[in-house]
Amino acid sequence: MSYPIIFDTDPGVDDAQAIAIALAHPEIELLGLTTTYGNVDVETATHNALLLSELAGKIVSVAQGAAAPLVKAKHPAPAFIHGENGLGNIDLPPIKGQAEARSAAQFIIDQVNARPGEITLVAVGPLGNLATALQLDPNIVTKVKQVVIMGGSVKEGGNVTPVAEANIFNDPHAASRVLTADWPLTMVGLDATHRCVLRPVDMEAIAAGQGRLGNVLAGSYAFYSDFYRGALGIDGCCPHDSCALAWLIKPELFTTARGHLTVITEGDAEGQTVFALEGRPFIDERWARTPVVEVCTGADGKAVVEWIVDTLK
Amino acid sequence: MSYPIIFDTDPGVDDAQAIAIALAHPEIELLGLTTTYGNVDVETATHNALLLSELAGKIVSVAQGAAAPLVKAKHPAPAFIHGENGLGNIDLPPIKGQAEARSAAQFIIDQVNARPGEITLVAVGPLGNLATALQLDPNIVTKVKQVVIMGGSVKEGGNVTPVAEANIFNDPHAASRVLTADWPLTMVGLDATHRCVLRPVDMEAIAAGQGRLGNVLAGSYAFYSDFYRGALGIDGCCPHDSCALAWLIKPELFTTARGHLTVITEGDAEGQTVFALEGRPFIDERWARTPVVEVCTGADGKAVVEWIVDTLK
Repeated sequence: MSYPIIFDTDPGVDDAQAIAIALAHPEIELLGLTTTYGNVDVETATHNALLLSELAGKIVSVAQGAAAPLVKAKHPAPAFIHGENGLGNIDLPPIKGQAEARSAAQFIIDQVNARPGEITLVAVGPLGNLATALQLDPNIVTKVKQVVIMGGSVKEGGNVTPVAEANIFNDPHAASRVLTADWPLTMVGLDATHRCVLRPVDMEAIAAGQGRLGNVLAGSYAFYSDFYRGALGIDGCCPHDSCALAWLIKPELFTTARGHLTVITEGDAEGQTVFALEGRPFIDERWARTPVVEVCTGADGKAVVEWIVDTLK
Repeated sequence: MSYPIIFDTDPGVDDAQAIAIALAHPEIELLGLTTTYGNVDVETATHNALLLSELAGKIVSVAQGAAAPLVKAKHPAPAFIHGENGLGNIDLPPIKGQAEARSAAQFIIDQVNARPGEITLVAVGPLGNLATALQLDPNIVTKVKQVVIMGGSVKEGGNVTPVAEANIFNDPHAASRVLTADWPLTMVGLDATHRCVLRPVDMEAIAAGQGRLGNVLAGSYAFYSDFYRGALGIDGCCPHDSCALAWLIKPELFTTARGHLTVITEGDAEGQTVFALEGRPFIDERWARTPVVEVCTGADGKAVVEWIVDTLK
């Protein structure tokens, strides 16, 4: 199989690893990286997208997108998790390339229309670029092959609020548009990604296999791991964004359920992804009014991490 | 130990069993039953509270309370679960007694002020009566010994919406007032009650032990079980309301966590109880602004059901 994808990203430490996978995996045809604010501001995201592909020795289109949420005020980027530079504050070499003149949304629209039925959108940050693409060209819902989102949570609880995952919380209005757009969509959220822990020994194998890119992945991982160790007491970290690609290539490593998503956009539950199992009756029809999507309910974490390491070592 | 309690209830099939426990258990001193709409309308709830205590051969004060939510529109009572008469549509004998002239809220206030520091409020329906008691006499927060609520859900999901449990959904504004009132409170929600399944054989033992009251408990259970079998595929039913009393007398059968509750009152998450573990940092302090309470996160369901059967057989 070959999977032509556009990877929408806010690199970000775990994004960097996922970008390395998208560049390295023989079954993935990476058509471009589209960038958004989120883990970092959008200019830093674009810089890092260019840098990471150059370090891998690949020339990849990078199109810059959302600098802020659609509706709500922008929350400061979490420099204590990803570093001020998004890559754990390690020293970075200069970049040579530059971003496309087109916006991220326009890049997505152009690519999808050029290859209808073929392209998968893999989005691992706040969903503003996909929402804007839908605003500019709603017909892409019938032309995209599938959409894979890293974000949200069903039973796992949230990571930035008790009920909300960061990507959805960062732009719940965009997430509502994207998760209910009636295209074939799979949500890979915390119910799956929290089952996966990438240990220091795993990162050593990745660093050894990835040359100059490996140095950046390992250096930034060390910073990111400090956060996990301090805040969550875990020796290792969850490779959230890589899980979206793991699902794309190895869906058999995940458990899933089909149903309806409602994104809460206001109030103390903002950013929550409310999931109603298909066919399960509730007190009224409100939670079944959105299209049916697929949601990851769990993962074989050990096997997912093995797949990541095998891809990058 | 002796536990003087006021039992706030909307009987209701599982309420009826809990009332039987409150009447039968040697360590429980039942000061009165206060009634609310919920599983049935409030007049039916009052009728059933009087009937159940008379069938047990006890004279108990019954004070009628809320006929409707504080703010939102009233949803129809779920006759398909509890029957039109709240007791599975079985034939019921006539009642002799009548309710107090005082409202439920006033009854609670009078009792608590008469015995400061002694009384536990056990509430297993929508929380309007406790909210109104707090409105009329906010000082009861320092005079109640403790408050035990059957309601809410943390990780279990909801039973009337994907995220909301019925009692909280029925009156989220009242629940918000009660669950954040800064009194010693334990929430016994679906995370615990869904671990407990009362089988037909258990109900046979209860029916045999409870005489005329047992006939009503068993007859109504048969109707309620039909709902569980049809909607949820379970041979038996969850004794939700009895779990609140099980926690009071046998807290060691439950796992608990301490933290902050926020009740969602508006939007598609209305009725959700958002739980923030004490000391767990989130993106801002919003979810830690309410008093710390205790929440049941699980239960030894087999042992809880054994305790129910032992109490009533």
